[in-house]
Amino acid sequence: MNEFEMCPRFERAVDVLSKRWVALIVFVLMQGPRRFGEIEGCLKSLSGKVLSDRLKEMEQEGIIQRTVYPETPVRIEYSLTDKGNALAPILGEISNWSSEWIELEALK
Amino acid sequence: MNEFEMCPRFERAVDVLSKRWVALIVFVLMQGPRRFGEIEGCLKSLSGKVLSDRLKEMEQEGIIQRTVYPETPVRIEYSLTDKGNALAPILGEISNWSSEWIELEALK
Repeated sequence: MNEFEMCPRFERAVDVLSKRWVALIVFVLMQGPRRFGEIEGCLKSLSGKVLSDRLKEMEQEGIIQRTVYPETPVRIEYSLTDKGNALAPILGEISNWSSEWIELEALK
Repeated sequence: MNEFEMCPRFERAVDVLSKRWVALIVFVLMQGPRRFGEIEGCLKSLSGKVLSDRLKEMEQEGIIQRTVYPETPVRIEYSLTDKGNALAPILGEISNWSSEWIELEALK
């Protein structure tokens, strides 16, 4: 299984993406830049505290950027970077797989 | 953000895939059927207890199957089902993304 040894990048990518909420936040931002409250409104059962932590981590990871517009009141928006936008094909394949293989009856 | 309301399948798929170790176990089994010890040997820092739990969950999810060969000693192998094999394009896209965007220097 030496193939495995050779894929530290793959392991790291799985690490980044499999952190709870990350893929769903990316999915929301694929629609365009969003304010904190807008993202929060899209993701039920995600607390503000956790969303705040995730956004910081994703910014640090270079997946999203935080833009402050000096208006009154100040407007802050989160958007995908190029690295974040490059996740689109992964989400697309997850969407394909889920359409084919996830049974709606199995959902609560 | 009504798009989000409409994707319970997508949310469920993300849930399944983002569970720690699942994607990596699928990646290992893409190479072919493997015994418990062989999977364990591929995934450093994964304990036998956690691997055992994950394999049960993945079997219940219909992603992998457990086959018992009545030899002496008994041989038990884990392999991907059709549903599990259908994850290949997702892993492929993660691999593409990681090759392009994950910096090796950033890895410990």
